[in-house]
Amino acid sequence: MNSAYDAVDLIRAKRDGRSLSKDQIDWLITAYTDGTVAEEQMSALAMAIVLRGMSRAEIRQWTAAMINTGEQMDFSSLSNPEGGRRRTADKHSTGGVGDKITLPLAPLVASYGVPVPQLSGRGLGHTGGTLDKLEAVPGWRASLSNAEILQQLDTIGAVICAAGSGLAPADKKLYALRDVTGTVESIPLIASSIMSKKIAEGTDALVLDVKVGTGAFMKNCDDAAELARTMVALGTDAGVNTTALLTEMNTPLGLTAGNAMEVEESVAVLAGDGPADVVELTVALAEEMLAGVGITGVDPREKLNNGKAMDSWRAMIAAQGGDPDAQLPEPRHQHTITAAESGTVTRLDAYAVGVAAWRLGAGRARKEDAVQAAAGVRLHAKPGDTVRAGAPLVTLCTDEQQRIPRAEQAMAEAIDIFEGGDAEPVALIKARIVAGDI
Amino acid sequence: MNSAYDAVDLIRAKRDGRSLSKDQIDWLITAYTDGTVAEEQMSALAMAIVLRGMSRAEIRQWTAAMINTGEQMDFSSLSNPEGGRRRTADKHSTGGVGDKITLPLAPLVASYGVPVPQLSGRGLGHTGGTLDKLEAVPGWRASLSNAEILQQLDTIGAVICAAGSGLAPADKKLYALRDVTGTVESIPLIASSIMSKKIAEGTDALVLDVKVGTGAFMKNCDDAAELARTMVALGTDAGVNTTALLTEMNTPLGLTAGNAMEVEESVAVLAGDGPADVVELTVALAEEMLAGVGITGVDPREKLNNGKAMDSWRAMIAAQGGDPDAQLPEPRHQHTITAAESGTVTRLDAYAVGVAAWRLGAGRARKEDAVQAAAGVRLHAKPGDTVRAGAPLVTLCTDEQQRIPRAEQAMAEAIDIFEGGDAEPVALIKARIVAGDI
Repeated sequence: MNSAYDAVDLIRAKRDGRSLSKDQIDWLITAYTDGTVAEEQMSALAMAIVLRGMSRAEIRQWTAAMINTGEQMDFSSLSNPEGGRRRTADKHSTGGVGDKITLPLAPLVASYGVPVPQLSGRGLGHTGGTLDKLEAVPGWRASLSNAEILQQLDTIGAVICAAGSGLAPADKKLYALRDVTGTVESIPLIASSIMSKKIAEGTDALVLDVKVGTGAFMKNCDDAAELARTMVALGTDAGVNTTALLTEMNTPLGLTAGNAMEVEESVAVLAGDGPADVVELTVALAEEMLAGVGITGVDPREKLNNGKAMDSWRAMIAAQGGDPDAQLPEPRHQHTITAAESGTVTRLDAYAVGVAAWRLGAGRARKEDAVQAAAGVRLHAKPGDTVRAGAPLVTLCTDEQQRIPRAEQAMAEAIDIFEGGDAEPVALIKARIVAGDI
Repeated sequence: MNSAYDAVDLIRAKRDGRSLSKDQIDWLITAYTDGTVAEEQMSALAMAIVLRGMSRAEIRQWTAAMINTGEQMDFSSLSNPEGGRRRTADKHSTGGVGDKITLPLAPLVASYGVPVPQLSGRGLGHTGGTLDKLEAVPGWRASLSNAEILQQLDTIGAVICAAGSGLAPADKKLYALRDVTGTVESIPLIASSIMSKKIAEGTDALVLDVKVGTGAFMKNCDDAAELARTMVALGTDAGVNTTALLTEMNTPLGLTAGNAMEVEESVAVLAGDGPADVVELTVALAEEMLAGVGITGVDPREKLNNGKAMDSWRAMIAAQGGDPDAQLPEPRHQHTITAAESGTVTRLDAYAVGVAAWRLGAGRARKEDAVQAAAGVRLHAKPGDTVRAGAPLVTLCTDEQQRIPRAEQAMAEAIDIFEGGDAEPVALIKARIVAGDI
C-alpha cells in the first residue's frame, strides 16, 4: 500500500500534542472510511484527541473531511412564487429529557414559508429521539428518499425524517466506534460529528440548542459554551448562518418524558396551549431560525395561537403517512409517586426522569432495541410548585408492569421538597452565542 | 454476554485518570485475550494508559494478569550433584546498537554452573535481535521445545532460543496492537510487557540492561531510570531476584553492528580479547547474574581468559545444531567511509549506525522480512580516538550494492571530528538500580 502518510506517525503526533495538517486529516478520514486506517488505529487516535484536543483549524478540517466522504444535499431548487430561492432553516439539540421541541418548532417555522429539513435521529440511553416520538403517531414513517424530502419541503415546508446514510459516512462509522471505545466525550469530536451532518444536509440557517445540566450531555456551562462556540464557528465557516442558545437541562422540559406523551404535549403547544417552558423555548428557537433566513420582527406565538402552525403540523404528519387525528397509544400500567410531605418542590432531576423513562420502555439501551410508544414519565409538579403531602408528583407509565420498580428506584433521590422552601427561579435560556464569540 | 465489567466503563475510568482495580484488570486482560474486549477497545485503553499512566499497583496487576493468560516454565527439576536445586539467571536488554552482550554473557555465566535460560527475540527497526545474530552461525536453530530447553539447561547450562508462544499470550497480542496504534511509548506498558515474559519464564535471578541514549528506546536518563525501577519492582514482587544497570547507548557497543560480525566480535570476547566496552559490560552483567543466585567474590574475566566461557559457548552452539568452527558469511560488497579531516572523534551516533546497518540488510522493517547475515557496519574508530584525514572511519557491508547509498546517507551527520578536540570520557555504566529504589 503506497500511501501519503503512515497512520502510526499521525497517531503519535496527536498523542504528543502536535497538530495535524489539512492534508494529514484529509488522508486520515478518507483512509479510515475505506478501511486503510483500521478501527483500532482510529480508536487510539480518538482517545488521543479526547485527551489532547484539537485546534479550531483541525476541527474545521476534520469536519470538512467527513463531509467529503459522502453526498451533500442540495435545496437550491426550492423557489418561492416570485422565483427567488427559498432559504432553509434547521435546528439541532444536543439532547435532553423531555426535549420535544423539534415537533412544534419545525411546523411553526414552516408556517412562515421557510422550508425546514429536519433530519433527525433515534434516542439512545436516557435521552429520547425525535423519530421515536413521531413513530407513536399511527402510520407515520421516518424514512424518506431525497426526492421525497425535496418535494415535501417544496409543498409543505416541514420535514422531520431520518438522516440518510449517504451524509458523512465517515461520521457514522466513527460515531459507532467512539460509542464502544470510551471516546464520545470530546468537544472537538462531538462538534465535528454534529456539524458534518448539518453542513452536508445543506441548510442555509441553523440554530443549535446546546443543553447544560444533569439531563444533558454537557454537565457544566463552560463545556457547553465551548461546544456551542466551536459549532457556531464551524457552521459559519461553512457558510451556514449559525447561532446557538445555551439552555437549562437540570429539570426536564415540559411535563412529559416519553414518546406518545411528548407528541400530545407538542400538539398542545401547537394549539396555543402547553407548558410555558416548552412554549418559551420553541418560540426562542423559531426566532433564531427565522432571523437566520432574514425574517425578523415577527412573533411566532401568533402562529401558535392562530392555528397556522397546527395546519403545518397536520400536513407534515399526513404527508409522511401519519393520521394527525388518531388516538395515541395509552400505557397498560401506571404508577403514581406522591409527595411524602408538604412543601415547595426545589429540585426535579432531569437525568433521573430520563433514566426512569428509559427503564419504563421509552428509550433503548442498544440501537436494535424497540421502544414503547406509551411508556414514559408524566410530571405533576415542577420546581417552584407547592405540593401537599400525598399529592401526585410523577406518574410512571409502561406496558410492562415489571419495569416499574426499577423506574421508581431511578426516581428515589430525584425530587427535593422543602417546607417553606423556595426554588430559585432559573433562566431557561442561559446564553446566546453567535459567530465571532471566542 | 454476561460479564463482570463493561469495557467502556473501564476505558472511561482510565481516560479520566482513575485507577483500575485488581479485578477490573484481571477481567480486562482475560477478556482481551479471548476476544470479548475488542482490539479497538484495547487500543483506546492503551492510549489512555500512555497519556494517564498506571500506578505501581496497577502495573503489577497488569503484569500478573498477562502472565496468567499463558503457561509458566518450571526449572525446579534442575538439580546440582549434591541434590540441591540449581537456581537460574537471565538477562534482558531494552535494545541498543551493537548490543551483542547476550552472546558472550550466557555461556560465561553458565561456565559457573548457573543455568541461563535466555529466551530471546528478533530485531525490528534499528536494533538487532539476538536470534538474528546467532542464525548467522551455519546450522544453528532458534526454536527449541520446552523439554529441549530443560535438557540443555541441565547438561550445558546456557540456552539462547526463541521464546515459545505459550508465555503470556496476552502480551503477544497486545504488543502487536501497540505496534500499529502509536501506543508503544509507555513505561507501564513496556515494563509489564518485558516482565510478564521474564516472570512467566520462571527465572530465579534477572539483570536488566536498560539502555539510554540516541540508539536506545529511552532517550533520557529519567525515563530510563523510571523504567528500570518499575521493572525491578515488578520482578522483586514476583519473587525474581532483580537488579538493573543503566547503560550508555549514544555510541554503539563494540566495533560492529550486524549479525555475523557481532558473532565474530562475541567470540573474540570469549577468547579473552574483544573491545573493552563489550568486555566491561559483559563482566558487569555477569557479576549481577551471579550475585543474583548467590555467587559473589568471583571475577568473570577469569573464565573469559581461561577458555571456560568459550567451552560453554561451543557446547551451546553445537547443542542447537550450529558449527562453532564454521566460517561465518562474508558480505559481497563493502564501502568504507574515510575521515575528511584529521582530529579527534568526539561523537559517533548509535542511532545513525543502527539505521545504516538496518538499511544494509542487517535488520528488518516488518516481522516477515529476512535479514542478511553478513550485512552491517564495522567501526574503525570510536569517540576519543584520533584519526588522520583519509583514514577509514566505518565500513558498510552488504550483499546488495544498491543498499549502500541510503546507508551512507544515514551516516552523513553521524560522526563529529574536531582538530585538537577532546571526547569527554563517558561512563558505560551510568547507574545500578536495586529493589527499593523509588
